Formats: sequence, C-alpha cells, structure tokens
Amino acid sequence: MAPILLNCMGNDHNDYIKQLVQVKNPNLDTMEEDILYHFNLGTKTHNLPEMFGDIKFACVGGSANRMKAFAQFIHKELELPGNPEEIIDICEGTDRYCMYKVGPVLSISHGMGVPSISIMMHELIKLLHHAQCRDVVLLRLGTSGGVGLAPGTVVVTDKAVDYSFRAQFEQVVLGKVITRSTELDEGVANELLQCSSELQNFPTVIGNTMCTHDFYEGQGRLDGALCSFSHEDKLEYLRKAYDAGVRNIEMESTVFAAMCRVCGLKAAVVCVALLNRFDGDQITSTHDVLVEYQQRPQVLVCHFIKKRLGLIV
Amino acid sequence: MAPILLNCMGNDHNDYIKQLVQVKNPNLDTMEEDILYHFNLGTKTHNLPEMFGDIKFACVGGSANRMKAFAQFIHKELELPGNPEEIIDICEGTDRYCMYKVGPVLSISHGMGVPSISIMMHELIKLLHHAQCRDVVLLRLGTSGGVGLAPGTVVVTDKAVDYSFRAQFEQVVLGKVITRSTELDEGVANELLQCSSELQNFPTVIGNTMCTHDFYEGQGRLDGALCSFSHEDKLEYLRKAYDAGVRNIEMESTVFAAMCRVCGLKAAVVCVALLNRFDGDQITSTHDVLVEYQQRPQVLVCHFIKKRLGLIV
Repeated sequence: MAPILLNCMGNDHNDYIKQLVQVKNPNLDTMEEDILYHFNLGTKTHNLPEMFGDIKFACVGGSANRMKAFAQFIHKELELPGNPEEIIDICEGTDRYCMYKVGPVLSISHGMGVPSISIMMHELIKLLHHAQCRDVVLLRLGTSGGVGLAPGTVVVTDKAVDYSFRAQFEQVVLGKVITRSTELDEGVANELLQCSSELQNFPTVIGNTMCTHDFYEGQGRLDGALCSFSHEDKLEYLRKAYDAGVRNIEMESTVFAAMCRVCGLKAAVVCVALLNRFDGDQITSTHDVLVEYQQRPQVLVCHFIKKRLGLIV
Repeated sequence: MAPILLNCMGNDHNDYIKQLVQVKNPNLDTMEEDILYHFNLGTKTHNLPEMFGDIKFACVGGSANRMKAFAQFIHKELELPGNPEEIIDICEGTDRYCMYKVGPVLSISHGMGVPSISIMMHELIKLLHHAQCRDVVLLRLGTSGGVGLAPGTVVVTDKAVDYSFRAQFEQVVLGKVITRSTELDEGVANELLQCSSELQNFPTVIGNTMCTHDFYEGQGRLDGALCSFSHEDKLEYLRKAYDAGVRNIEMESTVFAAMCRVCGLKAAVVCVALLNRFDGDQITSTHDVLVEYQQRPQVLVCHFIKKRLGLIV
C-alpha cells in the first residue's frame, strides 16, 4: 500500500485528519445511532470501522449482477485468499442495493438514475465516515450511449454535464433549487487514461458525460412509448452535445460527481459506450458482445487499483 | 370478468379500439423490431400478445422481493393453478427489473426514483401496446414517509405533486423542459378507498403525494451525508407540504402519473407510510412491523382486483 501512503498522506496530524472521509452534516455527530436503511446496516448493529476501515476504493455501478462479477474479478486479480464464488452480499437483508468487500475494494450497485444513486451515495459516504476510512477514491463503472464513438469505446469522464451541457447538478433542498459543481478529479482521470494505454486494444477517450433523467425522451431516443420529435431533431441535439464535448450519455454521473466534490472525495466515472447514438437508439449487439463491452470499465479500474496498490509497476 | 366488460367496453368498434393501450409514438409502427432492452424482451424474440394479451392489472413497485411476494400473494388469492412458490421471473435474463405474471395481473419492480421507474414505464406501455392489451389499470404499490399520519397508514394518491406542491412533472425533451399534468384517475382512487373501508382495521386516506428526486435533502431529512438546514427549517417545509394537502412523500409518483395520463391509462398510487416525518427521519420500526406495513398496499390492491374480477361482490 506504499504508493497510497506516499501519494496522499501528509506528514502532520492535520493532514492525517484531512484525509478522513468527511460528511457535511453536523447532526450526524450527535445522533445516538445512524441506521443506513437502504444498506440494512447501522452504527449500533454493526462495527463499521472493523468491517470497512481499510477501504481505499469504493466502486459503484448500476447492475447488481455486474457489481458482483466485478467483486469476483477483483478478488482473483488481487489474489486474495478464499473462493471468489463465495463472496457474500453485505446488504443481503435488503434488495435495494448489493455490496461486496474484497480487500481494500468495495463494490456496490446503485440501480438506475440520479435519485437511486443519490440514496446510495448518502449512505456510502456516511458509511466511509463512520468507518473512519482515509484516502478513499470513488469510481463509477457504467454503461452508456456513445456520441460519435464506436461501440465498445471506454469514456473516462472529464466533466459530468446536464441536458444543457453545463457542468452542474441541480439539487432541491426544502423546495429550493441549489446548484452544485460536477467537476471530477483531473488527476485520477489522467491516471485512468494512462492505464488504458497500458492495456492491449483498449479504445479509451476522456470526454464530457451527459447525465439525463430518463433513457428515452431526455436522450433523444425515437423508440420510447412517447416521442414527439423527428429523427432530424434528434440528430441536431446529439450534434450540439458532441460540439459541447459530450462523448457519452448516462444517468448518474452529475449527482455522483457533485456529492463527491462537496465532501472532498476524489472520484472518477468510467463508462463503456454500448452503441453510437448517431447510428441508432436500440441496443442490438449480441449478448456476448455486450458482456465483453461491460467488462471493459472493470478491466480498466482493476488495472488502476493494482497500480495504486503497487502490484503493477 | 363480467364487471370489467360492463364497466369499460363500449358497444361499437371505435370504443373497442379506444380501449387498446396506446403509445404516443408514431415511429413504433414502422419499426421492424422493438427490443424492450431493460426487460430482456422483444417483438421478434417473444410472442407478446400470447404472453401478455390478457393482462388487466399492471402492478408496479420499487422492490424486486416485494413484487415477487405480491405476485405469490395474488396467485393464492385468485386461486390459480400451480405452485405460487414456482412463479418465474419473466425478466430473469436481466437484473434491471423483475416481472411476474399471475392470471390477468402483472407484477413488476421498478427500482427507486423517477428515472428508474420512467424506463420501466416506457417499456411497460410498449409491452402492453405490442401485446394488444385492453382496459388495463396501472397501480403503483409503494412505501413512503407520512406527513402528519400514523405509521402504517395507507395513502391513496389524489394528486402527485412536485417539491413545490404543483401537480406537474417536468420532462426534459431534447434539452427543453416541458410540463405534464400528474392528475390520476379519481374513480379508481375512490374505488380503492371504498375497498379499504371493507377491510378490518385498515387506516387509509386519500391525499396528495409529494414526489422528490432524493431521499435526504429533497425530503428535508436531517440525517444524510449532506445537510445544511435546521430542524425548524425542516418542520416548516413539512408544515407547508401538509397545508398543500400532502400526506406522504415518495420518489416515483409524478412520472408514473404523467406517463399514464399522456397515454390515457387509468392509474392509481397506493403507498403505506412507514413513519411520520414530523416525528423523525430514520425508519426505526422493527423488521416484522415494517414487513406488515409493506403488505398493506398489497392487501388493498388485491381486494380491488378481486372486486373488479367479480370474485368479491
């Protein structure tokens, strides 16, 4: 773990404290118990520092099956003891999310869309805080629609942008809309791009990621139950997005980036493009091709983790 | 099935056609194939009219486990042949949603939040359309936070309202925000209230349901990873909500109502309040109490279905 210590830890007590995962809520310190309801965990029922204190990488993705597969993959790659087939879902008492811990890596599913990942992020940040974790990098691994990219290309997000291509997230707080920045950590993004260059045949770009609140009308798909626009309207919108630096479209990046930024957490978003939206809307690739595409963010993030842990020079 | 036929079907061909589930997308008719990607179903790979043509009730809810339990419960209550423990997840090729069919009832999970249910609703409405279903009622069964209600109270939604208590849903279409009405079917809501009065000890109200895009800051919770407001600010917001007729808060009702309305589908939202938000934020009831609460929308909707099918007079 030497590289982490060298890279991230300061020499004095203040720097040490600074690297603790911070919440931005003074109420939490005075609560007798904190129930992380959607994880089925709590500060009284679980020893969170013992369970999670050594976490350095919190990896999140939409699909429960995929995040289980990622945990098993990391288990093998880090050559950890035990059978990767027998890893246990820490959240098995609930079906809202699944969670696996393999060494310093946490793998959690977050469902689809901003609200779903937002609940998970609140509880994840509280979990890392209660567990007194330090120097944690958060990584979202996902699937997306590509904008002017060949299917299978991996996009490391530069800025997470909204439907108007602004790097901001609108959060409603007690009926008022506030705006938060969605800028991600440039250093981590560049590190990931460097990792991609060390892998064989691994098409990867850094670009902006547009985050929408639905899959059909918001992304300009012509094949939803509702559609009031033409093929030309769609292409015009995608062209504007491309001109604004957007290279892929997904549904979680803005709130993920915004919450990490508010809490001072280093974070990155790594999504594979399943199709090129200029060419169509439906995902028609075969099951096997899609499975291979979906493994690419996992392979890249695994490489990043192994380098950070000093397992690859 | 006589009551359905009497209530809903006209005498001539136009009325008959009118009851078919309609999409609002002219493109669908010209597509050679429609892949319902998140259901792992398609018009070429599956005979949708044969599989789903007799559906009269499409019931949706957040949790996969709960919607499986609901399907098994309906299976027993309708006294259908076969073992309810052996019902099969029609979407088992994907982990995005689960889907069970028991007689004329479809039970589907939709995850948490507007974007997640919106994807499901697009594909569900297309599914019902492709399957040539007629006279379908859509029912959302959920959990919620109560506003001035005792825990365990069931709320049948009058209007689904946004964070400003407006009965509308803002949908982004190609970068532009459009507004859709979220009014639900008054007749179905009253029928459900009548059903509740026929059950023993079944506290039920009709009230407005506020739909937020997160569980913490947007609902005025003091226990998230981020919180910038006081206990008094929270109570003031909840009081305003109460004064606007809001009796519970959840995260899916506006888009559910809006999409049903655009497509002319009769729909209702039935959620149990797990806590009274004036008294706290954390869900502290025991597991067994929560399980019983979560069954209440199922019991009510089951009673409604049995009455509609003429199994209860």
